[in-house]
Amino acid sequence: MNEQPTSIRREDPAKRIELGLHEKLHLDCGVELGPFTTAYQTYGALNADKSNAVLICHALTGDHYVAGDVHPMTGKGGWWTLMVGPGKPIDTDRYFVICANVLGGCHGTTGPKDINPETGDPYGLSFPGITIGDMVRAQKQLIDHMGIEQLFLVIGGSMGAMQVLEWAARYPEQVFAACPIAGAARHSAQNIAFHEVGRQAIMADPDWHGGDYHRHDAAPRRGLSVARMAAHITYMSEAALHRKFGRRLQNRDGLTYGFDADFQVESYLRHQGSTFVDRFDANAYLYITRAMDYFDLAAEHGDNLSAAFDGSATRFCIVSFSSDWLFPTSESRAVVHALNAVAANVSFVEVESDKGHDAFLLDEPELFGVLSGFINGSAAIRGLR
Amino acid sequence: MNEQPTSIRREDPAKRIELGLHEKLHLDCGVELGPFTTAYQTYGALNADKSNAVLICHALTGDHYVAGDVHPMTGKGGWWTLMVGPGKPIDTDRYFVICANVLGGCHGTTGPKDINPETGDPYGLSFPGITIGDMVRAQKQLIDHMGIEQLFLVIGGSMGAMQVLEWAARYPEQVFAACPIAGAARHSAQNIAFHEVGRQAIMADPDWHGGDYHRHDAAPRRGLSVARMAAHITYMSEAALHRKFGRRLQNRDGLTYGFDADFQVESYLRHQGSTFVDRFDANAYLYITRAMDYFDLAAEHGDNLSAAFDGSATRFCIVSFSSDWLFPTSESRAVVHALNAVAANVSFVEVESDKGHDAFLLDEPELFGVLSGFINGSAAIRGLR
Repeated sequence: MNEQPTSIRREDPAKRIELGLHEKLHLDCGVELGPFTTAYQTYGALNADKSNAVLICHALTGDHYVAGDVHPMTGKGGWWTLMVGPGKPIDTDRYFVICANVLGGCHGTTGPKDINPETGDPYGLSFPGITIGDMVRAQKQLIDHMGIEQLFLVIGGSMGAMQVLEWAARYPEQVFAACPIAGAARHSAQNIAFHEVGRQAIMADPDWHGGDYHRHDAAPRRGLSVARMAAHITYMSEAALHRKFGRRLQNRDGLTYGFDADFQVESYLRHQGSTFVDRFDANAYLYITRAMDYFDLAAEHGDNLSAAFDGSATRFCIVSFSSDWLFPTSESRAVVHALNAVAANVSFVEVESDKGHDAFLLDEPELFGVLSGFINGSAAIRGLR
Repeated sequence: MNEQPTSIRREDPAKRIELGLHEKLHLDCGVELGPFTTAYQTYGALNADKSNAVLICHALTGDHYVAGDVHPMTGKGGWWTLMVGPGKPIDTDRYFVICANVLGGCHGTTGPKDINPETGDPYGLSFPGITIGDMVRAQKQLIDHMGIEQLFLVIGGSMGAMQVLEWAARYPEQVFAACPIAGAARHSAQNIAFHEVGRQAIMADPDWHGGDYHRHDAAPRRGLSVARMAAHITYMSEAALHRKFGRRLQNRDGLTYGFDADFQVESYLRHQGSTFVDRFDANAYLYITRAMDYFDLAAEHGDNLSAAFDGSATRFCIVSFSSDWLFPTSESRAVVHALNAVAANVSFVEVESDKGHDAFLLDEPELFGVLSGFINGSAAIRGLR
């Protein structure tokens, strides 16, 4: 490994590397991008033959701080500490875990809030449109740079699952095992619709300034907050919202007959919205939601999803959650059917949970059991101790 | 009937009546409202013993133009012409159909955009908070004024169903038959959450001006449009969105890698949002969504939904749609269980449909069959020819 940490900020001690130096990154939109920065984090140690690397792909609003007790930006733990760490299903005593902030993001990897070297101003909407394929190609440059010929496992939930499928389809020989959780091989009309609402909320905010808010020393906080509120509802199940809040009132004895947050669920949503704007860039939200909307793995293979995996030797474990209505089990099942049609090595589990889409981030013992079994079994076959 | 049509505008030839004159309307928030205007429309003729009156309760964004070929404001047909008219399930050759714009609305009945007689300015947020109960009490004044002692049928979908349940619970002797469609006896946490997103979108728009936009000669068009877009998704099923739009592109050969409406579903949603703001008042949207959020019929009866209907002689027909995830069948079933527990006369049908919540407005032959059967059977028992 030849890490080149550059411009480490106090608030973000991530590893950073300049990629696209010798060979630019060819984006799906036609732009040749480079150099660009990738911010990433690693946990555990790479073994001698570099066969124990696990790439974790994060979701829409995630970042590279997947594990650890203290996230340097939020002060809380990493976003998947339940799953990743010593003795956990993704065991950092056994595996070398890599997680990189996605291209187009806002946590260190080059995205629309960064300076366009050609103009000296933040990219804003001059940043090229990106795709899930572009994110994965950028990760591929990082993995190649590390000298890792094959990843033992590529795993992720939601948009992370899209990246896992893209990895497995594009670089099958570099993926020993793949685990897409709560994902889909294409973004549904309903999901595009919800994303469009969020984007319209952001772009309707006058403080968005046509994407140039950085130059106006402003930020579309209200619009981004509304976008987050709408999205957050889709991450939970009706049952989870009912159990967590029901119709309980927020610190009051009765209805106020006004527009304050009478109900706990309103107060909770407002809090989700207002805290999100402190940690996320509005333009990055536009770009990343767009990348998800564009994802359609079958379309890239002549409308034949099976063709994306034809001849693959990768071991797949597909996981969905029974109460996930954003990426319902039917989407995972479509992937399983496509893999079965080309006799791929695939197992599939629908985890019974009432926690909705976000279940992949939460304490779900059945999920831990499924993943431990799949990872341990795959490690034995791969000959990892 | 002693109608007092006042201030008929060219664009709205509805009947209008001043109510709350002799006895003010006591609102749940404690305010005594009066006088107030109710705009309404009638179809067909009231029979001699005034026993053939059907009250139709409209949904969140509906109005009193329930039937007819030409809606005076939209130029299209009334919102339920499929169901209401000569020879239709609600047969205007047999029944005297009444539909009134709800209190707090923006289509003629007094609401936040109207002039507060005490100040001479539009009410804005000084309009009192209203409830489903208030809407129904206002309708009751209209029905009493018409000299109708008992409505043959009270029927409505969505928020209309809430009003139907409130009518049946509050004035059981005035309701011979009741048909709440795609409704619920309380607004769920998820539904409150979606409404809160819409309200926050409106209130985040600087053109909302704290609710005083009329005085600023402005309107929160962008915020209201986003609110409508978010809501509109919830009115359709995933299957309906997929069938109608899928991932088809909007008048283009390929992806643009930008933020225009690449997908048909985006273009459709934007159209829904932008046309809505021409026909609806943003503050009315705040007030009416709040009224729905507050609706909890069991809470008004000691947390015992059955108590709301104890001793009722009303004939109920409860209808839900299999793909309605906004007011799912489980909500209707809870009403059925409560009615059964007090031995009420109730039938229940879950209509198989993939059209989602909006199915009650659409061409659903099974729905027409169910309603025709229920209405004709009830008419025979009531002795209507």
